[in-house]
Amino acid sequence: MTIREIHQSGPYRYSYSPFHPPIATVEPGETVAIHTVDAFENKMTPEVRHFADVCTYPFLNPQTGPIVVNGAEPGDTLAVKIHEITPTRDHAITGTIPYFGGLTSTKLDPTLQPPLEEQWLYLPIDDAGIHFDAQRVIPYEPFLGTMGVAPEIEAVNALTPDYYGGNMDCVETRPGNEVWFPVHVDGAHFFTGDAHASQGDGELTGVALEIPARVTVSFEVKKGYGVKWPRIVSSDFLMVAGSARPLEAAARIAWVELIDWMVNDYGFDRMKAYHLLGQVGQMRLGNMVDPKYTMVAKCPRRYLDRL
Amino acid sequence: MTIREIHQSGPYRYSYSPFHPPIATVEPGETVAIHTVDAFENKMTPEVRHFADVCTYPFLNPQTGPIVVNGAEPGDTLAVKIHEITPTRDHAITGTIPYFGGLTSTKLDPTLQPPLEEQWLYLPIDDAGIHFDAQRVIPYEPFLGTMGVAPEIEAVNALTPDYYGGNMDCVETRPGNEVWFPVHVDGAHFFTGDAHASQGDGELTGVALEIPARVTVSFEVKKGYGVKWPRIVSSDFLMVAGSARPLEAAARIAWVELIDWMVNDYGFDRMKAYHLLGQVGQMRLGNMVDPKYTMVAKCPRRYLDRL
Amino acid sequence: MTIREIHQSGPYRYSYSPFHPPIATVEPGETVAIHTVDAFENKMTPEVRHFADVCTYPFLNPQTGPIVVNGAEPGDTLAVKIHEITPTRDHAITGTIPYFGGLTSTKLDPTLQPPLEEQWLYLPIDDAGIHFDAQRVIPYEPFLGTMGVAPEIEAVNALTPDYYGGNMDCVETRPGNEVWFPVHVDGAHFFTGDAHASQGDGELTGVALEIPARVTVSFEVKKGYGVKWPRIVSSDFLMVAGSARPLEAAARIAWVELIDWMVNDYGFDRMKAYHLLGQVGQMRLGNMVDPKYTMVAKCPRRYLDRL
Amino acid sequence: MTIREIHQSGPYRYSYSPFHPPIATVEPGETVAIHTVDAFENKMTPEVRHFADVCTYPFLNPQTGPIVVNGAEPGDTLAVKIHEITPTRDHAITGTIPYFGGLTSTKLDPTLQPPLEEQWLYLPIDDAGIHFDAQRVIPYEPFLGTMGVAPEIEAVNALTPDYYGGNMDCVETRPGNEVWFPVHVDGAHFFTGDAHASQGDGELTGVALEIPARVTVSFEVKKGYGVKWPRIVSSDFLMVAGSARPLEAAARIAWVELIDWMVNDYGFDRMKAYHLLGQVGQMRLGNMVDPKYTMVAKCPRRYLDRL
Repeated sequence: MTIREIHQSGPYRYSYSPFHPPIATVEPGETVAIHTVDAFENKMTPEVRHFADVCTYPFLNPQTGPIVVNGAEPGDTLAVKIHEITPTRDHAITGTIPYFGGLTSTKLDPTLQPPLEEQWLYLPIDDAGIHFDAQRVIPYEPFLGTMGVAPEIEAVNALTPDYYGGNMDCVETRPGNEVWFPVHVDGAHFFTGDAHASQGDGELTGVALEIPARVTVSFEVKKGYGVKWPRIVSSDFLMVAGSARPLEAAARIAWVELIDWMVNDYGFDRMKAYHLLGQVGQMRLGNMVDPKYTMVAKCPRRYLDRL
Repeated sequence: MTIREIHQSGPYRYSYSPFHPPIATVEPGETVAIHTVDAFENKMTPEVRHFADVCTYPFLNPQTGPIVVNGAEPGDTLAVKIHEITPTRDHAITGTIPYFGGLTSTKLDPTLQPPLEEQWLYLPIDDAGIHFDAQRVIPYEPFLGTMGVAPEIEAVNALTPDYYGGNMDCVETRPGNEVWFPVHVDGAHFFTGDAHASQGDGELTGVALEIPARVTVSFEVKKGYGVKWPRIVSSDFLMVAGSARPLEAAARIAWVELIDWMVNDYGFDRMKAYHLLGQVGQMRLGNMVDPKYTMVAKCPRRYLDRL
Repeated sequence: MTIREIHQSGPYRYSYSPFHPPIATVEPGETVAIHTVDAFENKMTPEVRHFADVCTYPFLNPQTGPIVVNGAEPGDTLAVKIHEITPTRDHAITGTIPYFGGLTSTKLDPTLQPPLEEQWLYLPIDDAGIHFDAQRVIPYEPFLGTMGVAPEIEAVNALTPDYYGGNMDCVETRPGNEVWFPVHVDGAHFFTGDAHASQGDGELTGVALEIPARVTVSFEVKKGYGVKWPRIVSSDFLMVAGSARPLEAAARIAWVELIDWMVNDYGFDRMKAYHLLGQVGQMRLGNMVDPKYTMVAKCPRRYLDRL
Repeated sequence: MTIREIHQSGPYRYSYSPFHPPIATVEPGETVAIHTVDAFENKMTPEVRHFADVCTYPFLNPQTGPIVVNGAEPGDTLAVKIHEITPTRDHAITGTIPYFGGLTSTKLDPTLQPPLEEQWLYLPIDDAGIHFDAQRVIPYEPFLGTMGVAPEIEAVNALTPDYYGGNMDCVETRPGNEVWFPVHVDGAHFFTGDAHASQGDGELTGVALEIPARVTVSFEVKKGYGVKWPRIVSSDFLMVAGSARPLEAAARIAWVELIDWMVNDYGFDRMKAYHLLGQVGQMRLGNMVDPKYTMVAKCPRRYLDRL
C-alpha cells in the first residue's frame, strides 16, 4: 500500500508552538511517512570546522510539522505509534559543541573554564550498523530524539523537553512503541525531528548519532482521556517521560504520573502502586544535556495486566 | 508634567512573547505610567474560597504589554528606570496555593503527600505600611515581580523567569533602580505586571503582597550594547539576575554575567574579578518557587567606579 | 569444601569507620560466608506498628564488619567478588518510613506537608520468588544494598553512599559481579549488610525487599592500583557507582571515573572515550532516597576488550 | 580580667568527631580565647606555588578542639557567644585551588575541562582593612568560617557543614552574634577554626580572606532545649543555617527549622509563620563551594519580640 509522504513545506520549525501554520492534516488510523532533517538541518559536512559557522541559536534542532490530527481536541490524548525509522543518508554525524554536553559546563550552569575541544565525527551506516571506528560497530537502534505536540499558549525552543514532549532524547521513542501526548490545541499540532541512529543513556556528549530520516508513524486520538506528561507503551512496559532539572525532579514527575496511570487504569491504591514500583520499577535516563533533563519511569506490564 | 497613562488594551497577556500586538509605543527618554493588575487579575476577593475557582493555569500572572520602545533592535539593551510604584487598591493579597510554594511539593517536583491548606489573607495598606496583623506592620517596599522583554522565537508563560526577564520576583527591581534587558525583537516589546507591596527573599509561600499598581518608568536604548541576562543598576550595586534550577545554576549564571560586565566595562581580568567577588560579592535570593529560580549577584560599585 | 562463617562479634556497626575493632581477618583469595541482619537489625515484626518504636537514628542499617583483608594498604584496590546471597529468613520486609523515600519530603529536603502513611509489608519468599501479593511474584534477584570499606579519617553513617562504597543500593552489587573499592587504611576494613531480595531502580519507597542473609564473597587485593570511586565488573559491563546530590552530580562522577578507567586501562583518548560513551554508555539509577543518591555508569565490555 | 588562652595541644583536627581527646574543659559562662591557624595550617607562603605541595586532602581546614563544655549533654543546646576575632598575622591569604570553588567544575561535580589557573594572593591587613590591591580596601568584618560540635557516632571531614555546624562559611558567625548547636555527646566537644577577615556571599572562589586568629568566645548550655540545626541570634535577627545540596534543599532545611523556632518559642501557628516569612524573611548564602552548601534563613526579631 502506498502511504502519504510528508515533507516540510516552508521553513523547518525551531519551536513547539501553536503559532505555526500546519503542513499537513492526517486522519486517526492513517499511517504516514514523515521526512526529517538532522539536528543541524543537514548543514554539517566534513569541510565545516565549527558548528557555529552553520548553525545559530535558537535556530537548532529543526522540526517537521506541525501536522494536524483530525478530531484531536484539548483534553484528549494523541497516541503516536512509531513503525519504522530509515536513515536517508549513508552516515551519522556526532560531535562536541563548545559549552554543550554532559561533562562540560554550559551556558545554563556556567563556570570560568575553557570549553572542551570541538570535534566532529562522520560515521558510515550500513547493514552492520554505525561504524564508530575500524574496530567498533554500534547496532542500528534508531529512535526519534524529538517528538511532541504544541503547547496551549507557549512556544518553546525545540531543544527543550517538557510536558508536551519535545527534545526528550530517550531511546524509548522507537519503532514498535506508542507515545502518548496531552492535546492542548485543536488538531494537536504534532512535530518531530532529530532522529538518532543510536544513542547512549543521557546523550552524554550532547549529540547522538544524528541522521535525517524517513519515519513512518500512525496516529490515534484517545477521546476524553487526559494525560499530563508523555507516556510510552511498549510490549513489555508502561513508561512515562518526565523532564525537569535537577534529574530527581524529572524522575519524580515520571514516577508520580506512572502511579496515577496505575491508579486510574489498573485499579491500584496509590500507596500500593508506590510499594510495587519501589520493588519492580525501572528508571531510564533520557538526556542530561538539554535545557531540561529527562528520566523515564517504567513498570513491567506483567505486574499490571488483567489481574 | 502630565505623563502618558498606559492601560492594557485587549486581554492581559500570560506569556512573554513576540506574537502579541503592541498596546503602545514609547520613545527613549519618555516617562510613562503603566497600569497593572495583580497576579490574579484582581479576581481574588474574600468571598472566593479557592484560587482555582477564578484562575486557571496557564492564564496566570497577567502582564500589561507589549510596549514597543522605538529604536530598540536585536543586539541592543533596553534600560528601564523604575520611578514609582503606587498601589491602586487599599489592600494587598497573599495566600497559599495547593502544590505551589517553597515549602511544599509542586507539580514540577511532586511527591505523594497532600497539599498544604489553602489560605488567603487580605491585608490593609496605608501610610504605615501593610498590616500583616494587629501587631505587625510590614514597610511598603514595592517592586515589580515580573518585567522583561519578548524572546526571539519563543513565547514563555508569565510565571517563568529567564534570560529575557519575566517573573524574577526579586526585590531589586524597585523604584530608583534601572533594569537592563537584552533586546531580541524590533521594539523590544516590554511587559510588566505582578507588582508587590513587599516580599521576603525567595517569595517563600509562592505569593507576595500582591497589588494592582500604577508604575512610572522611563526607557533608554543602549545601542549596540549587548547583555545576556537581566542586569540591575542601583546607586550602590551592579547586579545580575540569573534564573535556572537548581539554585546554584541560577547563581552561577548571575556570577558569570557579572564577571563579564566587570571585564568588559571596568577593565578587570577575569580571574581578578573572580577573586574580588569571592571577597565582596553579595547574593540575593529572588524566588525559589517559580518554574525557574532566581538569584541576584551583586558587586558594590565602590570597588568598581573611580579606577 | 567448608568455608569460614563470619558472624558479627559484638554490636553491629552503624558507620563506615576506621575506628571499629576488626571482627575477622581474611586472606586474599579466600572465600568466606558473611552473615548479615536486615536493615532494621531484624527488629521489625508484624506486631510492630511504628518503625520508630524499634529503630532510632543514627542506629540504622547495621553492618557486619569490619573485616581485615591481609595485605591491603592505602593506594591499593580491594576487589570483592560476590558469589551467592541466601536469605536466612522466610520473608522479606518492606515499608514506608515517615519522611523517608523518593516521593515524600524528607528531613534533608523538608516541606511543611504531613508524612505519607507508615505501612509495613511482610512478603513470603520461596522458590518462586517474593510474593508481593496473591497475583504478583517478584523474581529473587538479590544484591548487597550496602558494602564498602573504611574511610581514612572519617566515620560516616551506614545510610550514606560515597567514594568508599556504603549504602549505594544499586542492583549491580550482585552475585557474579566483582566490586572494587579504594583502600584507605591498612587491611581495608570491609563492611557489608542491607541485603535485598530484589529492588526497583531508585529504591523508590526508601525500603527494598529487606532480608537477613548469608553472603559468600572472596577478596583480592590489586596492589598499587588505585581507584577513586567504587567500580563494578560484570561479564558484560565495566561500571562505576557515583554518589552525590543532585543526581546529575552522581552521574558525572560515575561517567568521569569510567572515562579515566577507559583511558588508563584500555588506551582511550579522553575525548574518544567521551564520544563512545555518548553513543553506547548506559546509566542505571541506584538510589534516589539516601543522604546521597547513586548513579551507575556502564560501558559494554565488547567495545573495550582487546582491540 | 585575664582570660584563659586555649592553644591546640597535639595535632590540629581535620574532622568533627567524638573520637578526639579533649584539649580543654570550660565552664558555662566562662570566656576564653581560642587560637586558630588558617585553613592551610599557616603553610602557604609566597614561595609556595602549588597548594598541593603543602596540603593533602583530607588534611585540610585544621580545627582547634575539641573543647569540653561542662554540663552539656545530648539533647541540650550549646550557645556560643562570639566576642572578638583578632588576626594573629599581618596579612590574609586567598587563592584559587584547582577543581575547587564556585565557578569551576569540582571533584563532586566533575567535567572533562581543565582546571582554572591556581593563583595565590597575600593581602596586607591594617587598621584600614584588607588591601585587595592599591585601590581597593575591604573592611575587616571577621567571622569564623568553621565552628561546631561533635556528631554522635560520625566523624566528618572539616570541609563539610551539616547539622552539627562545621564549615558553614557564613558571615553571620561573627562577633556580637550567638550560635547555637545541638549537643550530641557529653561535653558537646566544640571545635572551631578557619577564621576569615572578610568574605563575599558564597565564598565564591572557595577561599576567603584566610587568617589565623585569636578568638574570644563564651559558652552557655541550654539544658533540655533541643535544636536540629545551627541557630544564630543577633541583635536584629533569628537565623538558621541549613547545609545540603542543592542550594534549595539547604534553604528549605533552614526555613523549616526557623518556622519550628517561631512555633515553639514565639507561639506561631505553622502556616502563619510560613506566611510571615514569605513577606519578611531573608535568606543569606553561606557557601556554594563546600561538599554541602549553606543557606541562612533570617527572621527580623521586631516581628517576633514584644507580642
